[in-house]
Amino acid sequence: MLKPLVEPKQHPLTDLYAPIAAEMTQVESLLKTELTSKYEFVDELLRKSNRLSGKRLRPALLLLFAKSFGDITEDQIKLAAAIEMIHTATLVHDDILDSAEQRRHNSTINYEYGNQTAILTGDFLFSHAFFLTSTLPTTFAAQEIGRSTNKVCEGEMRQIGTKDQFDLSQKEYLEIIDAKTAVLCSCATKLGTHYAGGTDAEVDAAAAYGTNLGIAFQIVDDLLDIVGDESKTGKSLGTDLEQRKPTLPLIHLLDSVADSEKSLYLNSLRSDDLNPATILDWFSKSDSVNFSKTMAIHYAKKAVDALGQLQASPEKEILAAIPHFVLERSH
Amino acid sequence: MLKPLVEPKQHPLTDLYAPIAAEMTQVESLLKTELTSKYEFVDELLRKSNRLSGKRLRPALLLLFAKSFGDITEDQIKLAAAIEMIHTATLVHDDILDSAEQRRHNSTINYEYGNQTAILTGDFLFSHAFFLTSTLPTTFAAQEIGRSTNKVCEGEMRQIGTKDQFDLSQKEYLEIIDAKTAVLCSCATKLGTHYAGGTDAEVDAAAAYGTNLGIAFQIVDDLLDIVGDESKTGKSLGTDLEQRKPTLPLIHLLDSVADSEKSLYLNSLRSDDLNPATILDWFSKSDSVNFSKTMAIHYAKKAVDALGQLQASPEKEILAAIPHFVLERSH
Repeated sequence: MLKPLVEPKQHPLTDLYAPIAAEMTQVESLLKTELTSKYEFVDELLRKSNRLSGKRLRPALLLLFAKSFGDITEDQIKLAAAIEMIHTATLVHDDILDSAEQRRHNSTINYEYGNQTAILTGDFLFSHAFFLTSTLPTTFAAQEIGRSTNKVCEGEMRQIGTKDQFDLSQKEYLEIIDAKTAVLCSCATKLGTHYAGGTDAEVDAAAAYGTNLGIAFQIVDDLLDIVGDESKTGKSLGTDLEQRKPTLPLIHLLDSVADSEKSLYLNSLRSDDLNPATILDWFSKSDSVNFSKTMAIHYAKKAVDALGQLQASPEKEILAAIPHFVLERSH
Repeated sequence: MLKPLVEPKQHPLTDLYAPIAAEMTQVESLLKTELTSKYEFVDELLRKSNRLSGKRLRPALLLLFAKSFGDITEDQIKLAAAIEMIHTATLVHDDILDSAEQRRHNSTINYEYGNQTAILTGDFLFSHAFFLTSTLPTTFAAQEIGRSTNKVCEGEMRQIGTKDQFDLSQKEYLEIIDAKTAVLCSCATKLGTHYAGGTDAEVDAAAAYGTNLGIAFQIVDDLLDIVGDESKTGKSLGTDLEQRKPTLPLIHLLDSVADSEKSLYLNSLRSDDLNPATILDWFSKSDSVNFSKTMAIHYAKKAVDALGQLQASPEKEILAAIPHFVLERSH
């Protein structure tokens, strides 16, 4: 049953983790020791799923905020690992939703073991994250992580409900990506700051950073479906269009064209033989890609601005650099 | 989108809940208010999923143990609702695993809305249960529920890994049904007793009751796949056999026949055109169904014995009657 795993290349973002390198190693060790089972089959699945997420962005955010206040505690390492488990659980379940075969050069759990096994692997990761969080002395983190994960699910459910719904407003789109992506980033930054003894204003600033960074990240991710380099992103262009998922560039495009053209576009989008190439061509004639890039820049700037509330530290410098990194993916 | 739901008949087991009728109503109200969303699509899914589980056995067990010590607190109502949400989440995901179309006379989430939506609905229920649990003053319940849910997932993953594994031992089978079914019953009885101020010995006795009742219940459930009345169980006979799931009667049968016969049986079980009717016929010539019934009785008795540790109360009488009820399903 055991197959060698392809060791994925280090993500360049991880170079930024230098000030928390030792702590990130502790998080990795904890993930390795927590995600084991005495039953070989279960153990294999847990080890595989632990490799699916690459950048470890959420634990890094938590620890960067925490360390900007002082030394990292064992509880913060646990929380960083728990948040990464939640994120991995959502990836494992997302891969089923997207019938994805590969993630980061390894085959997905659903592709290799079937959907049933992938559902249970995700469930195991969720429940183990909650268990780990509840080993902290107070219920604060468990509440935050429970509530945030719940919002992630609600956001994803809403997104499924918006399939084919091409009159989705920009406001609704932003609410959905806030829930499905930004909430967990915000949970990480908030917990890192809270458990480091940050003031209420500092915790709010950290949460605002996480939210805005998450929104910028998701706008860029959605843009890459239209303007990405397939060899870099490892995804086929136009997948969201094929799945009839209304994302920001498309919402803007439909808002900005004349009614006659809009009807034509909607007919194409709703036709059974929808061709992503045709739709990608529409964007080349519109300003919608640029508009979406500007929106991503707007949220990335808001993330950096939120850091104004924090005292100077090497970690703060890094946190200020991360949004730029997120934006660079879209160029 | 909205469809009228068929109101399922009250399960006869619920007649036993008389001493906690008012509290069970509070649990129902809490489930209704917690499982809502301001987004219509999400709200519809939550309302539907809340109707999938019928007997409310786990909340009833929690409250019966709690009330045998005194008045029920708001925290116990929350825990009863949280445990039911976890149970419902596992049902929603199980229905995907089994490609089930109906549960309790309503169509399943996967059948009506597709697997994607069902995965997310289950995830929502899990995370909401964890959130609700973490609103209690201490982390005790969150730890218990996190750990128990994790064991349920591990048990289900192991069961998938044992597909086709017809040399599964009785010991392994019992371990798996303990994890996938009995652990959550035991969690309910343990929490009910702990939060009622039970002594360590009383909490252990309550846990033992939950474990043994859960094991008896699952053995009976597995038996009904072979000897059940399709019109009563609402399931086709031989489904486990068709899915090549080794359960107690089959394990016993293969252990008790001569080697030559065993080879014949194994060939049939492994053949592409496995016919459940043929296999059901083997059981009529064996003692394996009786053996399994005896095992269920053994565990049901152990559950009743565990109650010896508790002081007399009307709730204890009811708790002593529930295992008999579980056994009656197999006659």
